[in-house]
Amino acid sequence: MDATETAQEIDVDALDRYGLSEELIDDIEVGLLESKPVDYFQALLEPLHAADIADLLEQLSGGEREQLIELMGDLFDAEVYSHLDYTVREDVVEDLDTEKMAEIVNDLASDDAIDFLEDLDEEEQRELLDAIPAEDRAFYEKHLSYPDESAGRLMQREVVTVPSFWTVGQTIDHMRDKKIELPDDFYNLIIVDPSHHPVGMVKLSKLLRTKRPTPIANIMWEDMKIIPVNMDQEDAAYLFRQYGLVEAPVVEEGGRLVGVITVDDIVEVLDEEHEEDILKLGGVKEDDLYSDVVETTRLRFSWLLVNLGTAIAASLVIGLFETALEKVVALAILMPIVASMGGNAGTQTLTVAVRALATNELTTSNAFRIVGKEVLVGGINGILFAILMGLVSWAWFQDPALGGVIACAMVVNMLAAGLAGTLIPLGLEKLGKDPAIASTVFLTTITDVVGFFSFLGLAAWVLL
Amino acid sequence: MDATETAQEIDVDALDRYGLSEELIDDIEVGLLESKPVDYFQALLEPLHAADIADLLEQLSGGEREQLIELMGDLFDAEVYSHLDYTVREDVVEDLDTEKMAEIVNDLASDDAIDFLEDLDEEEQRELLDAIPAEDRAFYEKHLSYPDESAGRLMQREVVTVPSFWTVGQTIDHMRDKKIELPDDFYNLIIVDPSHHPVGMVKLSKLLRTKRPTPIANIMWEDMKIIPVNMDQEDAAYLFRQYGLVEAPVVEEGGRLVGVITVDDIVEVLDEEHEEDILKLGGVKEDDLYSDVVETTRLRFSWLLVNLGTAIAASLVIGLFETALEKVVALAILMPIVASMGGNAGTQTLTVAVRALATNELTTSNAFRIVGKEVLVGGINGILFAILMGLVSWAWFQDPALGGVIACAMVVNMLAAGLAGTLIPLGLEKLGKDPAIASTVFLTTITDVVGFFSFLGLAAWVLL
Repeated sequence: MDATETAQEIDVDALDRYGLSEELIDDIEVGLLESKPVDYFQALLEPLHAADIADLLEQLSGGEREQLIELMGDLFDAEVYSHLDYTVREDVVEDLDTEKMAEIVNDLASDDAIDFLEDLDEEEQRELLDAIPAEDRAFYEKHLSYPDESAGRLMQREVVTVPSFWTVGQTIDHMRDKKIELPDDFYNLIIVDPSHHPVGMVKLSKLLRTKRPTPIANIMWEDMKIIPVNMDQEDAAYLFRQYGLVEAPVVEEGGRLVGVITVDDIVEVLDEEHEEDILKLGGVKEDDLYSDVVETTRLRFSWLLVNLGTAIAASLVIGLFETALEKVVALAILMPIVASMGGNAGTQTLTVAVRALATNELTTSNAFRIVGKEVLVGGINGILFAILMGLVSWAWFQDPALGGVIACAMVVNMLAAGLAGTLIPLGLEKLGKDPAIASTVFLTTITDVVGFFSFLGLAAWVLL
Repeated sequence: MDATETAQEIDVDALDRYGLSEELIDDIEVGLLESKPVDYFQALLEPLHAADIADLLEQLSGGEREQLIELMGDLFDAEVYSHLDYTVREDVVEDLDTEKMAEIVNDLASDDAIDFLEDLDEEEQRELLDAIPAEDRAFYEKHLSYPDESAGRLMQREVVTVPSFWTVGQTIDHMRDKKIELPDDFYNLIIVDPSHHPVGMVKLSKLLRTKRPTPIANIMWEDMKIIPVNMDQEDAAYLFRQYGLVEAPVVEEGGRLVGVITVDDIVEVLDEEHEEDILKLGGVKEDDLYSDVVETTRLRFSWLLVNLGTAIAASLVIGLFETALEKVVALAILMPIVASMGGNAGTQTLTVAVRALATNELTTSNAFRIVGKEVLVGGINGILFAILMGLVSWAWFQDPALGGVIACAMVVNMLAAGLAGTLIPLGLEKLGKDPAIASTVFLTTITDVVGFFSFLGLAAWVLL
């Protein structure tokens, strides 16, 4: 192996891990503790990508973070900011002065600048907008008027448009003109008619491969997806995923082009929606990893309170059968099993249904079939576990009648679980609510109540 | 408003909904029932995007699907296939002959073709590979040798490479050469050295804006992320998300360029990983929406069996306190509340932790702080609910001592929930397991056991 060969060798193992190392975080924390000079931190942070610096700031405690940002100076810039988690941003903004904020907003791409402005309270927004050139100010004010989580908030206004009557040559010359400011990243040109309505798109790769005299309209593709500025970001993300889009024009009422959404924005939306789904199913309102103890406690409390209400309701059902419980203590021992199996079977069904609703796979066209299938699955598993648990109970308490009671209750509750697991999210969706948010609590209330009622009720009837 | 204006007006409302309408699905189903002629279906399907046709096929029942595919003829092509859900694909492939399959594979981009081949069993694979040109066969065989869910399976081999010593002019001329076959979509050129190692990338937009004599090496950016062919797809997706990538070169051992991954592949991976996370947390192994009843029952059974085991364990704990339950029936009525509150508080913590592990936000650097915070949050909410539930129990059963017992048990169980909710996923991650898969069952076992034991144990000690 000669020297050149070795120099060109890429260390594939080193590629497996990028970004932040534990050692680096340790070095920073120790540095802060020992009040090392500014150079020390700058040398450590300089080689990092902005996204990794943002991660580092997230990993530190609130006090450390504030200290480090001060030490970073210009290394803390718009790009680092745009990679910070929402909760951490709020924290950071509090420590910035208006001048630094204006600098950040001016450096950000328009979609990230909107993100920044959104985070501020109204007074801060006003103050900051006043410190920005009038032309930009008007743009931002308009954007902040679009609904939260809409395509308008997501898009960037920097678009490369070409009139439909140009040739390839004219287009290339226009792009080479140093006076024209173009966005950093774009993959398509948007072809517009005289009233600035998008009529087609041209891939850059296509443009490159086409002879200069060709009219641009000849190489454009016209079945692009046009996104209204008020469309919910989740719907926009659906279009990108469904049709494998990389870029899509955004139009305002009347069809005028106002911006463009690119796939990297969509990756973030997908990530957000993912987070929302998973947290809501787990009974958490928002990602509180970086929130402080008081805020986290507050955010979790309300959900737990709802749960307490439903748990008490289930206990009231148990209370109806006090006499039975007093006579046969085995009922108290076995009853959580019936409720738990129903809850788990229901959660399985619910999870599949919520996910299928989110991906538009569960619709009114196949709802009836899916509900039927889930009830059947619940019924079959119900019978299997009824046999199993019936035998276990019989052996445990030497009482065949008790085995029969728990077996019947198991079948009833698993049927209820299949039914509730599909009907609850379908119903919430029908009512225009997010099926993820309250499904779990409704479901476990039903499986608890049905479980306790069928088991204790049957027992009271058969055994006493 | 004049005529031209009206013609150019874009109907923004119509843009809000794309794709499949309920009516269309109904028309197809009715058509199948009434055995309408082929033209009827072709006229309905012709205007649809391949992704929408795939959705339509997913919405139909198994029998309808088979019928429709037969009627579709050439409208069922590689693109429609590539948009089908995994479970439905398996179903569809069974009905295709080798000739149709070979046609599909030849029409697919290399990454989608790999997808197709993966779905087949070994014998079918062999048969199909024999029906494919030798050159492609070698490529596919090599690709199938990469591990499942690795970058190698995800990448496409069609890459536009340029030697680093070329000029912009040479590059453009090369791309204009009609004899060269280029991929449909690409956004960057990959610059390679003589041993075909990637050394940089050039954005097409940059290429377009640069004068012909400029050396290509002058406009390339070098800090691109290089992905080893064996990297897990989830790690590759992380890189794309973290650094906002659109395209990344893939290299084999030794650093030779073998392919490229584009962001649209990553959107699919994110979607898959999302699905996996959410389903695993809900106790479902894989998306079984389109699986038949028997298969679905089988897939759900094993998880429910594990849950039955843990539910019985919790009941054994209850059984230890038979005497107490016999004497004070209120204990049986109240005990599910303690367990339920612990389970829900634990699930909240667990969800946040699992999500934070998946996004690399929870690391060994901040694990200690996060665990501490969660225990504290559990403790505070524990105290709040202890007071609440203590008063409710006191009022309900007219017994202040019983109120005291449930209050103490509540605090203990919510502390345990905070601890278990963070330590279980951290432990699983440490052991190299996926934290999502078994966390919930471990957690509820702990909160049930601790809940029942602390409540009944304290009651036996204080009240009897």
